[in-house]
Amino acid sequence: MPASYDVAAIGNAIVDVIAPASEEFLIAEGLAKGAMGLIDEGRAEALYAAMGSGIEASGGSAANTVAGVASFGGSAAYIGKVAGDTLGEVFIHDIRAGGVAFDTPPLADGAATARCLINVTPDGQRTMSTFLGASVFLTPADVDAEMIKAAHAVYLEGYLFDAPGARAAFVKAAGIARDAGRLIAITLSDAFVVERHRDALMAFITEEIDLVFANEVETMALFQTTDFDVAASALGKIARIAAVTRGAEGSVVLSDGRVETVKAAPVAQVIDTTGAGDQYAAGFLFGLARGRPLAECARLGHIAAGEVIGHYGPRPQTSLKDLAA
Amino acid sequence: MPASYDVAAIGNAIVDVIAPASEEFLIAEGLAKGAMGLIDEGRAEALYAAMGSGIEASGGSAANTVAGVASFGGSAAYIGKVAGDTLGEVFIHDIRAGGVAFDTPPLADGAATARCLINVTPDGQRTMSTFLGASVFLTPADVDAEMIKAAHAVYLEGYLFDAPGARAAFVKAAGIARDAGRLIAITLSDAFVVERHRDALMAFITEEIDLVFANEVETMALFQTTDFDVAASALGKIARIAAVTRGAEGSVVLSDGRVETVKAAPVAQVIDTTGAGDQYAAGFLFGLARGRPLAECARLGHIAAGEVIGHYGPRPQTSLKDLAA
Repeated sequence: MPASYDVAAIGNAIVDVIAPASEEFLIAEGLAKGAMGLIDEGRAEALYAAMGSGIEASGGSAANTVAGVASFGGSAAYIGKVAGDTLGEVFIHDIRAGGVAFDTPPLADGAATARCLINVTPDGQRTMSTFLGASVFLTPADVDAEMIKAAHAVYLEGYLFDAPGARAAFVKAAGIARDAGRLIAITLSDAFVVERHRDALMAFITEEIDLVFANEVETMALFQTTDFDVAASALGKIARIAAVTRGAEGSVVLSDGRVETVKAAPVAQVIDTTGAGDQYAAGFLFGLARGRPLAECARLGHIAAGEVIGHYGPRPQTSLKDLAA
Repeated sequence: MPASYDVAAIGNAIVDVIAPASEEFLIAEGLAKGAMGLIDEGRAEALYAAMGSGIEASGGSAANTVAGVASFGGSAAYIGKVAGDTLGEVFIHDIRAGGVAFDTPPLADGAATARCLINVTPDGQRTMSTFLGASVFLTPADVDAEMIKAAHAVYLEGYLFDAPGARAAFVKAAGIARDAGRLIAITLSDAFVVERHRDALMAFITEEIDLVFANEVETMALFQTTDFDVAASALGKIARIAAVTRGAEGSVVLSDGRVETVKAAPVAQVIDTTGAGDQYAAGFLFGLARGRPLAECARLGHIAAGEVIGHYGPRPQTSLKDLAA
């Protein structure tokens, strides 16, 4: 069956609150720069009260990726859990307005829509504190099998490894995709996620995954080494394709024993790196679904990442289709 | 008594929803490009559903201005009405996080926090559709006399002329400021506001106002002429100081029969003009409170406007104090 979606993704459905912050603020609040930390609702309220004035924007790693795929002119679907509140309405509006299919029913009673408090330092680095709220109430019942089967690739967010129900949803989706002969992709998401779930992630990748996205820190964390080449090479051995991003240096794509290094796109000014990895995955997955060679997939990834780091907010504000043309 | 605030402002407390839009979208939705139209809650829901994916950011014209004054390192206070809902919390967080004093109690029961749906066309022009919600329930009782007396200037938003209670609050604040020997400033806000309330605005300016902010369209609307020089000159006769913005051309400052033309600051790329006039007023009022000559006040205004049109969102994302240095 030809795929009617380029990508179907499963992830934590989150609204971002993004504000500029000083290095001193990160220290005062005990935040690990560049990482994603999980917080409860009380801490979220206290941290929000301490944060600067900012903007709100729909986020969620895999949701940002499918929004990017749609911006390239691709077709995409998304599965994730919001609550029936104002931020949930914002999330649903934004993902559908971008042209992404989204039908997961909101959580009826219970936790609020997930929020990610993002403090952006003057160097453009983002430090994330996430209150997962309703997003962790995603269950296997929310995985629409027809949606997964209809996609060229299913894209899974490593963050989901933190919630048992969501992880089960993730495993179900991988099974459906495998049976349908579809590509299965994952992003490692965060070095602390890798630390928390190293063995389970390693087994899952080895058994189920065709394509792994990771940044260099996550890759080294997975293999417990500080030697990037060793880690990348090891990742290339357990996955059919591995695409490892290296910030301003670009990315390395490993496949069938071959290693290709692709440069990042030039960027006038880095404002906020939120969503850079998500948009790299968007370009890569879109290229792959359209049959482009791997190096070109990586170049599309860098075009998308270059757009998103030039402004606050994790999703493209300019048509990626136009930028890629 | 020396002023403890540079500016105290009264305005409609609004959260903006900002999304890119095509010219065709404006036509299909019957929106007058570049203007601010008032809509009810039903229309707000329908228009939001039709809009593209965007960002949310605290807005409100005079609130944007005091946020700009604070970004210059000035001290400011704000009076405006939100509801006790999620968007109201966002508004309160952002204005206080910027260092602005804000104590107006939220509306207990009734309308939701005001939203302004802003469609930004590829030329950077913004077209606004505002659901006023709780903001019009501002009353004279919300005007904190001590706050007004303590400010070098009180700044009034022309948009408030649309709601009788808010207009009464506005008149009360002007009276307090006059009795305290403070500067009274107003912005005409929008050409349609001028059309709706021309006589009342004209009388209010003539009797109460020291400083008028307006753009060229609003100035010509006030005097029902298409000749800018005639309109600007007429405005200069009814107000002690008039600062008229002309988009990319800069601004014209009229005072005591003198006319000074000040160029706009260079801008690399215009992304979204939302807040340009508000930030011009911020720089101007900050300069005035710090005793700068009028032409320098206008230059500070252009620095602030230049910052805000380079990104989505109506408030500065970079320290205006640093930019002005």
